[in-house]
Amino acid sequence: MSLIQVINPNTSLAMTETMGTAARAVAAPGTEILAVCPTHGVESIEGHFDEAIAAIGVLEQVKRGKEQGVSGHIIACFGDPGLLAARELASGPVIGIAEAAMHTATLVATRFSIVTTLPRTLVIARHLLQQYGFTHHCAALHAIDLPVLALEDGSGVAQEKVRQRCMQAKREDGSGAIVLGCGGMATLAQDLTKELGMPVIDGVSAAVKMVESLVALGFGTSKHGDLDYPREKPLSGAFQHLN
Amino acid sequence: MSLIQVINPNTSLAMTETMGTAARAVAAPGTEILAVCPTHGVESIEGHFDEAIAAIGVLEQVKRGKEQGVSGHIIACFGDPGLLAARELASGPVIGIAEAAMHTATLVATRFSIVTTLPRTLVIARHLLQQYGFTHHCAALHAIDLPVLALEDGSGVAQEKVRQRCMQAKREDGSGAIVLGCGGMATLAQDLTKELGMPVIDGVSAAVKMVESLVALGFGTSKHGDLDYPREKPLSGAFQHLN
Amino acid sequence: MSLIQVINPNTSLAMTETMGTAARAVAAPGTEILAVCPTHGVESIEGHFDEAIAAIGVLEQVKRGKEQGVSGHIIACFGDPGLLAARELASGPVIGIAEAAMHTATLVATRFSIVTTLPRTLVIARHLLQQYGFTHHCAALHAIDLPVLALEDGSGVAQEKVRQRCMQAKREDGSGAIVLGCGGMATLAQDLTKELGMPVIDGVSAAVKMVESLVALGFGTSKHGDLDYPREKPLSGAFQHLN
Amino acid sequence: MSLIQVINPNTSLAMTETMGTAARAVAAPGTEILAVCPTHGVESIEGHFDEAIAAIGVLEQVKRGKEQGVSGHIIACFGDPGLLAARELASGPVIGIAEAAMHTATLVATRFSIVTTLPRTLVIARHLLQQYGFTHHCAALHAIDLPVLALEDGSGVAQEKVRQRCMQAKREDGSGAIVLGCGGMATLAQDLTKELGMPVIDGVSAAVKMVESLVALGFGTSKHGDLDYPREKPLSGAFQHLN
Amino acid sequence: MSLIQVINPNTSLAMTETMGTAARAVAAPGTEILAVCPTHGVESIEGHFDEAIAAIGVLEQVKRGKEQGVSGHIIACFGDPGLLAARELASGPVIGIAEAAMHTATLVATRFSIVTTLPRTLVIARHLLQQYGFTHHCAALHAIDLPVLALEDGSGVAQEKVRQRCMQAKREDGSGAIVLGCGGMATLAQDLTKELGMPVIDGVSAAVKMVESLVALGFGTSKHGDLDYPREKPLSGAFQHLN
Amino acid sequence: MSLIQVINPNTSLAMTETMGTAARAVAAPGTEILAVCPTHGVESIEGHFDEAIAAIGVLEQVKRGKEQGVSGHIIACFGDPGLLAARELASGPVIGIAEAAMHTATLVATRFSIVTTLPRTLVIARHLLQQYGFTHHCAALHAIDLPVLALEDGSGVAQEKVRQRCMQAKREDGSGAIVLGCGGMATLAQDLTKELGMPVIDGVSAAVKMVESLVALGFGTSKHGDLDYPREKPLSGAFQHLN
Repeated sequence: MSLIQVINPNTSLAMTETMGTAARAVAAPGTEILAVCPTHGVESIEGHFDEAIAAIGVLEQVKRGKEQGVSGHIIACFGDPGLLAARELASGPVIGIAEAAMHTATLVATRFSIVTTLPRTLVIARHLLQQYGFTHHCAALHAIDLPVLALEDGSGVAQEKVRQRCMQAKREDGSGAIVLGCGGMATLAQDLTKELGMPVIDGVSAAVKMVESLVALGFGTSKHGDLDYPREKPLSGAFQHLN
Repeated sequence: MSLIQVINPNTSLAMTETMGTAARAVAAPGTEILAVCPTHGVESIEGHFDEAIAAIGVLEQVKRGKEQGVSGHIIACFGDPGLLAARELASGPVIGIAEAAMHTATLVATRFSIVTTLPRTLVIARHLLQQYGFTHHCAALHAIDLPVLALEDGSGVAQEKVRQRCMQAKREDGSGAIVLGCGGMATLAQDLTKELGMPVIDGVSAAVKMVESLVALGFGTSKHGDLDYPREKPLSGAFQHLN
Repeated sequence: MSLIQVINPNTSLAMTETMGTAARAVAAPGTEILAVCPTHGVESIEGHFDEAIAAIGVLEQVKRGKEQGVSGHIIACFGDPGLLAARELASGPVIGIAEAAMHTATLVATRFSIVTTLPRTLVIARHLLQQYGFTHHCAALHAIDLPVLALEDGSGVAQEKVRQRCMQAKREDGSGAIVLGCGGMATLAQDLTKELGMPVIDGVSAAVKMVESLVALGFGTSKHGDLDYPREKPLSGAFQHLN
Repeated sequence: MSLIQVINPNTSLAMTETMGTAARAVAAPGTEILAVCPTHGVESIEGHFDEAIAAIGVLEQVKRGKEQGVSGHIIACFGDPGLLAARELASGPVIGIAEAAMHTATLVATRFSIVTTLPRTLVIARHLLQQYGFTHHCAALHAIDLPVLALEDGSGVAQEKVRQRCMQAKREDGSGAIVLGCGGMATLAQDLTKELGMPVIDGVSAAVKMVESLVALGFGTSKHGDLDYPREKPLSGAFQHLN
Repeated sequence: MSLIQVINPNTSLAMTETMGTAARAVAAPGTEILAVCPTHGVESIEGHFDEAIAAIGVLEQVKRGKEQGVSGHIIACFGDPGLLAARELASGPVIGIAEAAMHTATLVATRFSIVTTLPRTLVIARHLLQQYGFTHHCAALHAIDLPVLALEDGSGVAQEKVRQRCMQAKREDGSGAIVLGCGGMATLAQDLTKELGMPVIDGVSAAVKMVESLVALGFGTSKHGDLDYPREKPLSGAFQHLN
Repeated sequence: MSLIQVINPNTSLAMTETMGTAARAVAAPGTEILAVCPTHGVESIEGHFDEAIAAIGVLEQVKRGKEQGVSGHIIACFGDPGLLAARELASGPVIGIAEAAMHTATLVATRFSIVTTLPRTLVIARHLLQQYGFTHHCAALHAIDLPVLALEDGSGVAQEKVRQRCMQAKREDGSGAIVLGCGGMATLAQDLTKELGMPVIDGVSAAVKMVESLVALGFGTSKHGDLDYPREKPLSGAFQHLN
């Protein structure tokens, strides 16, 4: 039995549930999904400030996950907040959902499009493309211009906007796959893949398979070199619990 | 029951066996490995000329694999010969072992080293790094300066040279993972990972998990855009069987 | 008397003739053009699968060309299929027509546009731009959305579409030259150059001058390093004739 | 009277003092330096985990600085932790010391070297070079292989190691300037510049001049686009004070 | 008392005055601005030919400025003509206004737009972006399609065109700052910054602060390495005065 | 009869002769070489300052060459000084010898090395590699650490140093061709090519073939876009003769 921790870096329980559902839908028979979110922080992540706060929640959950004996960790926000910090802390693999979706897209298409929420988050996606090496694999980035929580308001408006943007991307971008740029869109991927007749990729489910794969291959995060455990030092005040 | 085809693009049965073994060692319970190689072609691949010939063998096997109902295909030579051509032909996912190993390395370390066989193949690895986006993730490339088939001569000399080079790479490169740059090194990865205390990655096993993952996610190769099936046209002469 | 081999990688005799005509139109007094194509293969090249097959035909012709004592070889398909493999096999220079046209464009303009046939071939052009170093020298890529053989149907429709696209590129791209992205467009370049008042470059003629130049300079393909002759190994089955 | 806030992201008062001293040494007559550090956090920053924690301290101080009416903010740790988050929060300019030192180096030399503390922090410098656009302007990165706090142990050993590495960089790197890769090295720059006869650049002092310059030009952080103030949302728990 | 030399590389006295005014508006209390232009050369700079001629004027002025004891030099044309040559000649800092504006833009926004005069000068801006490392920080380049001297014709037409283009850039480019791409636009920046509510950056004023900053930090151009003084050699004919 | 102008941008008659000899050695039967140099300027080019002065001489000679009816122009200094300015002025093709040698090298090898004179000129070569797109095609740059005119002192010391460095490059760089980084080395290429058994490329002869090729293809410099003739404007003082 392998336990994979899906960390929603924001505090929205509804979104955590969405992600847990998406993760469980693809988990292997032997995999149990533990979908968690921080008790404190921000209820949605729509910029670098939100990300900085969310990163602490991610680290708290990684620490807790290690204590619970999870095999690996997923950071389920499209900006992959705290990814390298979490890799230092973890012994098992840590995968961000932007990373997972982007890698996956390059395996099934020569170029991909991204559809995300607010325009202000596009810069985060651009920086990740550069960091992961995929700047030239991304044909276009699109924003539906709605905040993250619109995906949880029950109206379906945001979901329809995502769908429209995906169809437009299919027609215009010359790309072979679409990456959904928000953890809250996780459950849309399967239906859109069918409707559009091309891979529409959700990072949560992609990340589950990546963690399972790394675990099966016997790989955790490398502790040789710059992702070694954090150097021990007293953490004071509000960070004591991360000791 | 899912069937994954591991295509050794050269005609060496011994090496095909090595790869099959490595693949089976990590295959999920529901996965069966079909390790094959072309009946005609070159017995080892050490340059672009060899790759061009091997690519035809890869396409023949992909076609046969489709007829056999395999779920996905692996091109088990570190140059990933014929990868995009095979993706056009296939409906399921196609993964090259260089691609698999490089992607995997970036998930567990910030930078990796490559250890391969002959210096003349380094240019192939460099081109793949550029194509996949990982030029800046590769800290160094090393060649043991022995031909591919030295790995199959039973003396263990080549294996020891690989081991020495890996240890040197660990000491000097400042990288957190090592990618083994030849399908014939597939069975060395696990022991070297233990001995060196850092991820030493074989692309065959990594590719098995990638194909399994893509299949589980419901993704084949995208047929929207430039990886669509080859346009139908009469294939003449020695290529008729690819029709 | 110098003999230059123009290899049309597809089996279309009409297109081979087109290319031979374009080559002869610019050949120096002492140069004889030998326009050839494989007897077996694909009749047009419109993707990676077609390219893989065509590469074998290219290698067969290079081998035959060497036996005939040609000074150099031209691969007359815009994807430059088998270029590095052919360089290993050849002792003289080998030039691809995409390579020739792109290099030439950078010598007469700061940026250039590409006009090619099917959208699905754009990815091939993009990869070549990256490999040759010209990604930032290309202002835009255009496809007329007609198959290669439309250029040989005698209707002139494809030719007119090429012309329209070139004029649009002149107006909109901010580039100083246009590269024709198909060997079948070879004979259009001269008239379009005049009509548009800017360099419209055909790779076949450009490649002829490059091979002549390298021969005059005393340079063949470097045999020091990774373009050395293929390591000798038995070629089996359908590839025996390449031994 | 203009007030510039120098934020030491770690909790070391000694290092905060060092930075304050370096900042005051170059501040214009009308500039007052406010050197601060978080009350809680890590006492030195030597990896991504430490940076994630330090980023919260940076944001706390930026918020406090705004309340105190400072004109601009400096993040005085060579990894520039929390830079873009702080820019969202601030109205005035925010400058990181790695950013300041790297920009400055490119203005006085064609290429520069970096001398930092622990090898594990080199990856952070590499990512910043990429983000800021200076990958090709950096000739070499060096680590003295001592932790950050060795710079504060009073023995002078770390300082001597920095000096030796700078001299080696001058001899071997072919670069025209050296960037000191730690806020704790701030007070060494002036003497090393004299001794080596080439610019040895400390980011703290460079950042002071950048903030002064931006203020004089009338520029704060752009609030049009992706560095706009964080979207308002309730911050819960340990982050309430950031509301 | 510090003397900064603002070199207008063209011979337009009106434009020299414009730049002097912009420079003085931001100069620190202790800074005196010496706005100069060559007596011979071109009256506006709109291409590489004009730049080559202007570079000689720049070098003459730098030499004269050194004799007058100036602290630093500014090359006040958006192509930064003769920048590296001037750095060899100078002992103090030399800053180009394109360089200054681009650097400044990256400190207050994640991406910027450029608005310049003639389309033919865009290639110069593109080359500078590449040289300085900012290719990926520039969201878009725009030309108002009027010659440089239209900015000095008193009609205000060019100024209005600049304003319109800036507003369009704000709406469409997704960038957080705008760089004015001509020294003759220097005095427009402040008003446009207010009207648009985002940083609109003039390189002349930005360069003044950079030179002041480098002087305050004690940095001139590095004389270690490739920006060392020109090797002494007799300059003949029209260049004797540069000895 | 076609006339090609080889412009030595420095004033050394001996070096002009060297270049003329190298050019004539490869010129086609119908080509006459006109080797010229400026009457005023610098006697060798070893930095950006020298280049700026030399660029004026290049433009003078291009203007004179046009009046003499030459078909094309070669800028025979490895920094290609004034290349784009000369292209604006010329109607025929203009080729720099660094450009010619680098392009040629990529046609016969996957990567090349450069051997030049003084270390301070390496930055110029690096910038050209970036501008031409060949940064990743250059395996290493070497300087023999002797000034340009040492190649003309008759002692042969510099020539022997070039030879030693080429042999070292062959052993260590993993490149397949060597580019000679100074016009004064032009006559060494042929012997070194033989001795080393790999292409050693001189840019002067390579440029002759490029100009001949472009002329034969009917291409001059594109006058559509940013290389159009300089906008007409009065050139004053020492530049009047360029009107």
